[in-house]
Amino acid sequence: MPIYLAGEVSSADKLVRFTPEKFAATYNVEVLTHTEVVSIDTERRKVRITSGPGEKETSIPYDALILATGARAHVPDGLKSASKDVFVLRDLEDARQIAQTLDTQTIHHAVIVGSGYVGLDALESFHRRGIRCTLFASSGHLLKGALDVDMSDLLVSHLGDLGISIRNDRVQSLDVAPDGSIRSVHTASGEQTGCSLVLLATGTRPNTALGEKAGLKLGPAGGFQVDTHLLTSMASIWACGDVVDFTDGVTGQPLHAPLALNAFLSGRVAGQNAARGGTGRPARMKKVVRAAAVAVGGLEVAHTGWSLESAISIGLDAVAVTIQSRSAASLAPNNPLHVRLVAERTSRKLLGAQVIGKEGAVQRANVVTSHLRSGSTVDDLYDMDFIYAPRLSPLHDALLVAARALQKDL
Amino acid sequence: MPIYLAGEVSSADKLVRFTPEKFAATYNVEVLTHTEVVSIDTERRKVRITSGPGEKETSIPYDALILATGARAHVPDGLKSASKDVFVLRDLEDARQIAQTLDTQTIHHAVIVGSGYVGLDALESFHRRGIRCTLFASSGHLLKGALDVDMSDLLVSHLGDLGISIRNDRVQSLDVAPDGSIRSVHTASGEQTGCSLVLLATGTRPNTALGEKAGLKLGPAGGFQVDTHLLTSMASIWACGDVVDFTDGVTGQPLHAPLALNAFLSGRVAGQNAARGGTGRPARMKKVVRAAAVAVGGLEVAHTGWSLESAISIGLDAVAVTIQSRSAASLAPNNPLHVRLVAERTSRKLLGAQVIGKEGAVQRANVVTSHLRSGSTVDDLYDMDFIYAPRLSPLHDALLVAARALQKDL
Repeated sequence: MPIYLAGEVSSADKLVRFTPEKFAATYNVEVLTHTEVVSIDTERRKVRITSGPGEKETSIPYDALILATGARAHVPDGLKSASKDVFVLRDLEDARQIAQTLDTQTIHHAVIVGSGYVGLDALESFHRRGIRCTLFASSGHLLKGALDVDMSDLLVSHLGDLGISIRNDRVQSLDVAPDGSIRSVHTASGEQTGCSLVLLATGTRPNTALGEKAGLKLGPAGGFQVDTHLLTSMASIWACGDVVDFTDGVTGQPLHAPLALNAFLSGRVAGQNAARGGTGRPARMKKVVRAAAVAVGGLEVAHTGWSLESAISIGLDAVAVTIQSRSAASLAPNNPLHVRLVAERTSRKLLGAQVIGKEGAVQRANVVTSHLRSGSTVDDLYDMDFIYAPRLSPLHDALLVAARALQKDL
Repeated sequence: MPIYLAGEVSSADKLVRFTPEKFAATYNVEVLTHTEVVSIDTERRKVRITSGPGEKETSIPYDALILATGARAHVPDGLKSASKDVFVLRDLEDARQIAQTLDTQTIHHAVIVGSGYVGLDALESFHRRGIRCTLFASSGHLLKGALDVDMSDLLVSHLGDLGISIRNDRVQSLDVAPDGSIRSVHTASGEQTGCSLVLLATGTRPNTALGEKAGLKLGPAGGFQVDTHLLTSMASIWACGDVVDFTDGVTGQPLHAPLALNAFLSGRVAGQNAARGGTGRPARMKKVVRAAAVAVGGLEVAHTGWSLESAISIGLDAVAVTIQSRSAASLAPNNPLHVRLVAERTSRKLLGAQVIGKEGAVQRANVVTSHLRSGSTVDDLYDMDFIYAPRLSPLHDALLVAARALQKDL
């Protein structure tokens, strides 16, 4: 969707992998659209469905049920608005509406509320269209939980150089004109900022209500509690995607990790197990490492595992270093690479990394993810055979430099 | 040196990290230049030195001795030549001479003999200067031992599109004019190819003669046999760099891996152990994975661990797949990525990978190296949390696609 919103894809239809008809034909399943499941009768193994409010309900029996209800955009009460210029960005219909507004109206100034991945993706898309943007981060901290504050500060400073304003302030209310157009946003510090479009990227919530009503247990991270086969606490009901808690590959604890690859893999596991009918070996969902990235302002911003702040928040005795290195040898064209590396003090086990640079950040985070998955220490990372090719990678890769710095600190 | 040869560095002096004087001052050691060690008296712990042939020999006693004699360019007898237009590329003096020729003469056509890293580095440098190049690969196979033939073919085809001729033929002799200039090369198939410069990139040999004369044992891979502390078979003599056999991180067997990072790390280990005088814990050289890359014709060509051919040659029951994927999501600007993945059949253990693409190949090879070092299987690689960010990396990373294909084959 960020690419579509930037105006680089001619039609939203190109983002659609399957139409309902094609999906039904490809997998030989019945697809009901414009149909809501309003309740699950776990005793009689039936779901109650309706085609809309006020319409009559009917029942469909099931042998196996999969809940893939995903997550929804969460908007704080004070910011809920019916203005035609105020958007969330969760599904393709949201994206279509935003794109239509961008294509047909002149947006002098866009305000983005929220500093997570959705906010930064939207910022990048608007900025690529040449729209002046202001992003409000209530904590003054971009990608909080993923980036530590020094890496966030580096990104804020870089975006500032591009004329993108990142404000450390909380948007408390929206000023909408009688005709439904947005006029301005009002902040906790008393400022009023005029704008012609507002994107609310204020987080998501897993859609657990239907399952909760049927008695499914939630996990501590907010999704359905599932076992390694993705079976919920209720017989014959599996769950997958953004609506379940997975198991963290670093700590072994339940983790909410609503990432596309986890949705894909867990959907496959839930489907296989729901369909197997008790024969053969059940499919298992792997442990997951929370690893993601965003392309913003010409930078790759990537992270994997735990930031220092988030590690400390779950009681780990963690330590971190931040280093600056480069993408290639000093005599070759190269760009700065910033690496923050986090490890547990006594065990020296790696906990996570954050990498920011014009190139090579995502794949370096992937290298660290490999190490996180195998329970490596900072010494194992230092012992890595990083490839040296002067035009492509320096003799001392940025991750090697970071590992060395952390060894010295430990 | 490839960057210098391409004319992108103003002076070869910029490639010099330490002058002898600066090295002596920085580390407080005596540095003798223009001095050759002609023999080692291991009984009396002395080395015999001379300042040149015919000069008188003197002795220097040692408590600890480190052999860091490196490797030298190897030229087959039939190609040895005193022509001013025929070069090897091993040390900075070689590079200076080549650069001077390129800077002062018009080179209509350069012939490169040899298809290893040095040959490809030189090819890239000459090509960047706009010089027409022909590279002779006696096996028709680029980076043999590192790349399997299908990946080599892909590279040959790409270079052909750039007007670079890769010839499957062996250069047997050189035709040098009476004035010492090169006229042509003659090949096994009877062809005669005119040229104005020849680079002989026909391999290297470790400089073991001095140590062998003193009775040091060689390892099966051709370098000195050393223990994990880099002590040779002789008391008080350590060795490091291109002149020793390391231990392969994949097979546990002795491995010749003359790579810059191994030279750096082993130099540190040998130095620490030679200097420690029996107190404290000795430094250990890590196991190494053979991983390298070259930038040629706008491509990153990277490999790590064992190719299928090389794995089979050491008796492993190996299997491989080759896939084509892309560097980013299909709707974003992206480039093809070719991955070949090698694993052991029964254990499913990863043995190596080869990655070729305009971007992201080196770092993906580094991801596989991480897995090789931890003894991962192809299933562990498939379970990786590859980062998805549409502009930076597709939902299904090329390595994930390769792992999936290999799982199916196994």
